[in-house]
Amino acid sequence: MPNYVYSFGGGKAAGNASQKNLLGGKGANLHEMTHIGLPVPPGFTITTEVCTYYYGKKHTYPPELMSQLKSAVKKIENLTGMKFGSAQNPLLVSVRSGARSSMPGMMDTILNLGLNDATVEGLIEQTGNPRFVYDSYRRFVQMYGDVVLGMKPESKDDSDPFEEIIIAKKKLRGVETDTELTADDLRELAGEFKDAIHSRTGKHFPQDPEAQLWGAISAVFGSWMNDRANVYRRLNGIPESWGTAVNVQAMVFGNMGVDSGTGVAFTRNPATGENAFYGEYLMNAQGEDVVAGTRTPLPMSAMEKDNPKMYAQLMRVRKILERHYKDMMDIEFTIQQGTLYMLQCRIGKRTGFAAIRIAVEMVNEKLITPADALMRIEPEQLNQLLRPIFNTEEKSAAISEGRLLATGLNAGPGAASGRVYFTAEDAFLAHTRGERVILARNETSPEDIKGMDAAEGIVTSRGGMTSHAALVARQMGKVCVAGCEALQIDNKKRVMHIAVPHDTETHYPHLAAHLETVSDGEAKRTFIRINEGGFISLDGSTGEVILGEVQTQPSEVLRVLIYKTLDAANSPVYKIYERLMKWADSTRTLGVRSNSDQPDQCRNAIAFGAEGIGLCRTEHMFFGGDRIDAVREMILAETTEGRRAALAKILPYQRNDFLEIFRVMNGKPCTMRTLDPPLHEFLPHTEKEINDLAKSLGISPETITRRMDDLREVNPMLGFRGCRLGLLYPEITEMQARAIFEAASAAKKEGIRVNPEIMIPLVGHVNELKSQTDVVRKMAETVAKETGMKVPYLTGTMIEIPRAALTADAIANVAQFFSFGTNDLTQTTYGLSRDDSNKFMPFYLEHDILPRDPFQAIDRDGVGRLMKIAVEDGRGVNPGLKLGICGEHGGEPTSVEFCHTLGLNYVSCSPFRIPIARLAAARAALAYPAKKSPRTRAAATKKKKAVRK
Amino acid sequence: MPNYVYSFGGGKAAGNASQKNLLGGKGANLHEMTHIGLPVPPGFTITTEVCTYYYGKKHTYPPELMSQLKSAVKKIENLTGMKFGSAQNPLLVSVRSGARSSMPGMMDTILNLGLNDATVEGLIEQTGNPRFVYDSYRRFVQMYGDVVLGMKPESKDDSDPFEEIIIAKKKLRGVETDTELTADDLRELAGEFKDAIHSRTGKHFPQDPEAQLWGAISAVFGSWMNDRANVYRRLNGIPESWGTAVNVQAMVFGNMGVDSGTGVAFTRNPATGENAFYGEYLMNAQGEDVVAGTRTPLPMSAMEKDNPKMYAQLMRVRKILERHYKDMMDIEFTIQQGTLYMLQCRIGKRTGFAAIRIAVEMVNEKLITPADALMRIEPEQLNQLLRPIFNTEEKSAAISEGRLLATGLNAGPGAASGRVYFTAEDAFLAHTRGERVILARNETSPEDIKGMDAAEGIVTSRGGMTSHAALVARQMGKVCVAGCEALQIDNKKRVMHIAVPHDTETHYPHLAAHLETVSDGEAKRTFIRINEGGFISLDGSTGEVILGEVQTQPSEVLRVLIYKTLDAANSPVYKIYERLMKWADSTRTLGVRSNSDQPDQCRNAIAFGAEGIGLCRTEHMFFGGDRIDAVREMILAETTEGRRAALAKILPYQRNDFLEIFRVMNGKPCTMRTLDPPLHEFLPHTEKEINDLAKSLGISPETITRRMDDLREVNPMLGFRGCRLGLLYPEITEMQARAIFEAASAAKKEGIRVNPEIMIPLVGHVNELKSQTDVVRKMAETVAKETGMKVPYLTGTMIEIPRAALTADAIANVAQFFSFGTNDLTQTTYGLSRDDSNKFMPFYLEHDILPRDPFQAIDRDGVGRLMKIAVEDGRGVNPGLKLGICGEHGGEPTSVEFCHTLGLNYVSCSPFRIPIARLAAARAALAYPAKKSPRTRAAATKKKKAVRK
Repeated sequence: MPNYVYSFGGGKAAGNASQKNLLGGKGANLHEMTHIGLPVPPGFTITTEVCTYYYGKKHTYPPELMSQLKSAVKKIENLTGMKFGSAQNPLLVSVRSGARSSMPGMMDTILNLGLNDATVEGLIEQTGNPRFVYDSYRRFVQMYGDVVLGMKPESKDDSDPFEEIIIAKKKLRGVETDTELTADDLRELAGEFKDAIHSRTGKHFPQDPEAQLWGAISAVFGSWMNDRANVYRRLNGIPESWGTAVNVQAMVFGNMGVDSGTGVAFTRNPATGENAFYGEYLMNAQGEDVVAGTRTPLPMSAMEKDNPKMYAQLMRVRKILERHYKDMMDIEFTIQQGTLYMLQCRIGKRTGFAAIRIAVEMVNEKLITPADALMRIEPEQLNQLLRPIFNTEEKSAAISEGRLLATGLNAGPGAASGRVYFTAEDAFLAHTRGERVILARNETSPEDIKGMDAAEGIVTSRGGMTSHAALVARQMGKVCVAGCEALQIDNKKRVMHIAVPHDTETHYPHLAAHLETVSDGEAKRTFIRINEGGFISLDGSTGEVILGEVQTQPSEVLRVLIYKTLDAANSPVYKIYERLMKWADSTRTLGVRSNSDQPDQCRNAIAFGAEGIGLCRTEHMFFGGDRIDAVREMILAETTEGRRAALAKILPYQRNDFLEIFRVMNGKPCTMRTLDPPLHEFLPHTEKEINDLAKSLGISPETITRRMDDLREVNPMLGFRGCRLGLLYPEITEMQARAIFEAASAAKKEGIRVNPEIMIPLVGHVNELKSQTDVVRKMAETVAKETGMKVPYLTGTMIEIPRAALTADAIANVAQFFSFGTNDLTQTTYGLSRDDSNKFMPFYLEHDILPRDPFQAIDRDGVGRLMKIAVEDGRGVNPGLKLGICGEHGGEPTSVEFCHTLGLNYVSCSPFRIPIARLAAARAALAYPAKKSPRTRAAATKKKKAVRK
Repeated sequence: MPNYVYSFGGGKAAGNASQKNLLGGKGANLHEMTHIGLPVPPGFTITTEVCTYYYGKKHTYPPELMSQLKSAVKKIENLTGMKFGSAQNPLLVSVRSGARSSMPGMMDTILNLGLNDATVEGLIEQTGNPRFVYDSYRRFVQMYGDVVLGMKPESKDDSDPFEEIIIAKKKLRGVETDTELTADDLRELAGEFKDAIHSRTGKHFPQDPEAQLWGAISAVFGSWMNDRANVYRRLNGIPESWGTAVNVQAMVFGNMGVDSGTGVAFTRNPATGENAFYGEYLMNAQGEDVVAGTRTPLPMSAMEKDNPKMYAQLMRVRKILERHYKDMMDIEFTIQQGTLYMLQCRIGKRTGFAAIRIAVEMVNEKLITPADALMRIEPEQLNQLLRPIFNTEEKSAAISEGRLLATGLNAGPGAASGRVYFTAEDAFLAHTRGERVILARNETSPEDIKGMDAAEGIVTSRGGMTSHAALVARQMGKVCVAGCEALQIDNKKRVMHIAVPHDTETHYPHLAAHLETVSDGEAKRTFIRINEGGFISLDGSTGEVILGEVQTQPSEVLRVLIYKTLDAANSPVYKIYERLMKWADSTRTLGVRSNSDQPDQCRNAIAFGAEGIGLCRTEHMFFGGDRIDAVREMILAETTEGRRAALAKILPYQRNDFLEIFRVMNGKPCTMRTLDPPLHEFLPHTEKEINDLAKSLGISPETITRRMDDLREVNPMLGFRGCRLGLLYPEITEMQARAIFEAASAAKKEGIRVNPEIMIPLVGHVNELKSQTDVVRKMAETVAKETGMKVPYLTGTMIEIPRAALTADAIANVAQFFSFGTNDLTQTTYGLSRDDSNKFMPFYLEHDILPRDPFQAIDRDGVGRLMKIAVEDGRGVNPGLKLGICGEHGGEPTSVEFCHTLGLNYVSCSPFRIPIARLAAARAALAYPAKKSPRTRAAATKKKKAVRK
């Protein structure tokens, strides 16, 4: 008989943490915590298989479920000594969803289940606290009405029928807050709620706890397919087929008096990674009070002071959890009359910054190995070490100018400046207009995700470190200031106010335009008013909200690597970075190069750890200073001689640039690509430019516009560019080759080793490569004769159109290396112009037509198959063929992994992506250790040779 | 010992006709003719291996050659009874080149070799004709000087030193023609020639016949690498490595008096194929007199009358040759004093028309089998049976009158004459006035269809063989000259200009009215100006554009198939066509369908033998009448509802078109493709059109231009088109599917069988196909419910971007058929826009970078490999997958062959290419008989089933 119900409690559990697929994340960890001796209220988990059954068989349950459920309830009764439905000693339970992957707030939960008109009395007898019991009862009725019986308001703007009843009751009693209502009031409320349910839905609130339980279970399974859950799953790539589990657990109460409470905590700081217990709690409260933000929770440090015994219990739990899970954990606990209960634990979400620090420090603490650390950090998270922070002086100036508006919780580190918007939709639209955007909300909900994604930073006036805003911002790597209560945000009027002293204008006259004074009866109140679109700045590391823009400055890591600020080298942040990169480099087998066109970019590349240049777009040198004039003269020339004369003017510039690059790269391989873009890209655009150019070249503007017309193309991407230019105008390739070889000779004379790799773009037929390679080789000989100096070099090609990959065997007979140009290869393989795909790509991604934008991550089935063909066929005829990638994908982690599995020698990406590529390569080497890349083999051979010497 | 010299003569020969590679074409046939008893002057062939040796070993000969040569000369001496170098009875020989493949006039020849100051006397004694002998001598010295001793003038403009001497001699003698010179004059000339050789080259004319022979042989081998030969080889794809043979043969003389003569003939008429001896001859002349054109040769019929005995001898030879070679032969003969000698025979070159007639008639004569006949006709030659043609004399006259304006690409064969118009609208209106019209455009777009349809022929100044104009013209069977860049067409001013030399008026005064001179600074430029309504003529088979009218006429085959002129059905030409096509159809295993968008095109397709429609571009129906307004309304609609409203207007038109197509096709399969081109192709272009459209739709012109801007793309080929449209606007696909299914139901009600195959374009990911297939299937169900009638149909996809081929296994799980769209597949596989490739494609082809334009013939290594992957992977998961091709390649013979070898079910091409495809498919089946195509298998299964029944 299949087992659909897994019990836990009393130190025993039917499941464990490895069974997330079956028990969901929450369930599996409840079982695990029970195993390792932590105090977990007894309960059971209904497996995800039941969810699959439920949706597969028209919302019915497996026949075995009923009896398994009954016996599981019995087990709870035995462990607690309470009885479900008993008027004397009633067992109350919670019913919670729990999918394989956490989907916070997306699905439904029901607490206090088991209460009814009879059990209420028993509970009052037990607790002697009628107000608590009636409050629990009216909350249960309300929740059950919402979740199970369909009383939930249809939209945010609809008023909640239950809230209306409460408001009416308060009016009747002449009180302002819920807490002023008496036990009797609450009892009456419960009754009125039940009536409201019946009059609105025609259904009776069920008195039978078993009926309640089935209703709640069905509601939780049903919520797997609600709109919010569907959206969340799509955004997070969670398949519908996973289903959710349901956890039913004996209730414990944090609102049973001053020795009760509830809280959430992280075993380390999830924002900074600091190794300190971090969280917040409320005494005499239930979990929903913490989440709702109606009462402000206290930090854990308050408990250490006020309730050291309880704190010590939690510290013990923290230690056990970290030793057991070997990771930073996110926990929920409840204290019922002095006794600690664990309600949840899971691997804690964290900022990239924290992820890195925690991983590195856990290696130091010998909790995990360096390999574990590498596998725990998503390469993209490294960005957070590189992300800018505010310029210290500017920020100080802003504060001294009275522009510090308020301070909230430092929920997502980093610095962000932008125009403020008050709804997710507005933020999204402003972002699509190209604005930098700050989203300001009272609190965020899953509906705001799109706006949060569009924003540089998020600020909320309510909610704590574990509020929706804080959680999601950290996950997205966004700057976030949460719970900044001084902000009076009016989402409807699209404005926010911050109260300031009356005399603000006197002190800060420059703020006058922002100030607004409101008469409030006799009192006058002064505010700073910020309208939609006004600039504000957020420091997510300190929680500060500042009026206007503040300049940002580079992080410590960037200061060391790029700005060579030596003092930052001793900063903990830089040290962590250095350590991690060292582990990555000793682990990876894939080389990492940089796409750098200019000497300064090459310097950055080296700083970020590049082992060579994978793509130097030589034409990028064409734009500086007077060069563009000579380039234009060359394009407009009608004869070979005219072109040669113009090219002769460009030669010294290119040679100097190459020389400087050779100096910077100092023997590291440099892949230099010959002219690639269509010629019209170099011609002037405005009439004035055309006239100026005509004058300087002594020709008529008409000649220029005629030539521009000649060069205009229907599909420039598929036009006269790449090696096609070099074939028709070999003198261009000759000039570029001459510049490379003359620069290389000059560098050699300076004692610098050189290692140029000359790359021919857009080859589709081997004859194109042959012809261009001949030009390059002849020029190498010519320059060698002229300078009396031989320079080592390779010649090879981009593989960037499908035909090159499909005929790789022929091409590899001529090429010494291939470099995959996956940008263009993706365009041609998909028949998809990057410049035009925005017309349908967003639709395609939203509707799952394409699993991912192929320009972001290599499409393995299509583009990847061509790469595989090229690798196999190319190495088949030329085993020594060097293989790399120089498309944008070279810095994207999943693509780096794919390149590793293909056996490429290196990836090449923009300088700022290099650390990410290094980490991704290390992770790929750990994930696919068997696959020996040729680089490993080459390295091994080298080592052997070195040993022999 | 290797044999380098092959002797023939006296009824025996060392070689035979199969040894062309070794003996060259001429040599092998000399041996063969000797074998079969024809009178061939004795001689020998020095093999092509000697040529290879000569070039491989620095212009030296194999050591064995000398003795083999000597003994071969001896054999001639024995057979003729003459002696090389003998003053009494001198043997004279000719030395001629002879490569594997004929290279007429490219290499050198020497006649009368063996003459010297001594043998001259012997020959005079023998012939008693000193003038003949001295003329032969001076000719030999002249030829030898030219060819062997380097007296040849370096360019055509240099004067020939020998000619100068002759001119001087004639002046001295006061005579005008060579024939007036006496024997003494000629003797003196020989002497003066020898002196000139010595004074100019320092070399003596050799008196030793053996030295003469070696010199001549070296000169012939040397001529294999002369400039003319190199160019010819490149143009004709003859490898350098083949080398030439050298034929040395006893001289016979056609100029030995009135009973001597020489001639060339074909065993049948090479222009018409008529089974009649065809040729010309001159009495008392040598071969060079015939070639030089100084005397007018007589037709063979003159010999039949004047010299019936000689004619009978030739008729006997003709019969023997045709019986032996089983083909039409091209011969050269000489009659020496009443005796016939054969100097050469080879398979005769012929027009396509003649090729077809000869092949068919030789089957009738039981000389060859139908399979032989099919293999002998190049499929393209069928064009000559189909195209209207210019009256040959009229065209020659036009050219000699200076009326050839320019030559472009021969994009749509046939001949057309008419008045030129520069816009589609003007052309259409002129056509409705009853004018014959030529449409001249810089390039055409789908909007021009109406005008193209109205025109007899289309000429464009831009675009290649697969440009819109060329594609559509071929499909319509229109004459087309594309990319004729010499035409300066001004569509706005309704005029075109062609630059001509300044002195045009001097040479062709009758063109004066057309000429226009424009001052351009100091320079003056002269043009022919052609106004709207002026007459021009297009020869689409040659690409020529001619000023004024030239008379045309449709071919007999077209008169039967298209114009239904029943009398032509009895014409021999039509009967030949019918017979050949019957053989082709019973031989081929590949199906042949047509690319036809409109009912009348479908009628043509059926007439040409189509077995179905392989591509119906449904959007081509969008342009007729008011439809385009509704289409534009649809594109401009901002909402789904707006689009639906506009689509509802288009629906009845599409439905009617489909219904008519189903009627015409009567149960044959019809592949209907959903909307493919980018939407901007349907929008208006001129300001007036925009304003009119705005008025009729009640919106502002700005809205239209804004939408046009929205739709503008950088690379439209890779943009928002194909199924991408249908995915974002499923209502378009819905409307098209509804039109198809409603039409199919209506046809079924009429008792017509229907077989629609609905094809989704530009699929790159299986999800695209899934989504669009769902739309189609749902509509099929909807219409079935509405009409109560189920219609059989298939759904499938174009394979036209590389990713579709690379993921064919996934796609074949959804598709019931694939149709290779090799036009776009070639563009994307090569990264090559066919609209732009004219910038470099001509250079690529001229310099052998690409062996052939991949838009003309399928590139087997690149595009073909993708097709192979798609076929194998697609059939791998879906063995019943139907496979076809609907790119332009479907009508190109080598591509048809490739499709046969891939195992496709059918090819589809424009109606006028169908006979060509049928023939090409038959030839492929003969060339690759082992490869059983699935169609054969299907047919076999069918037959088996039929038998069982």
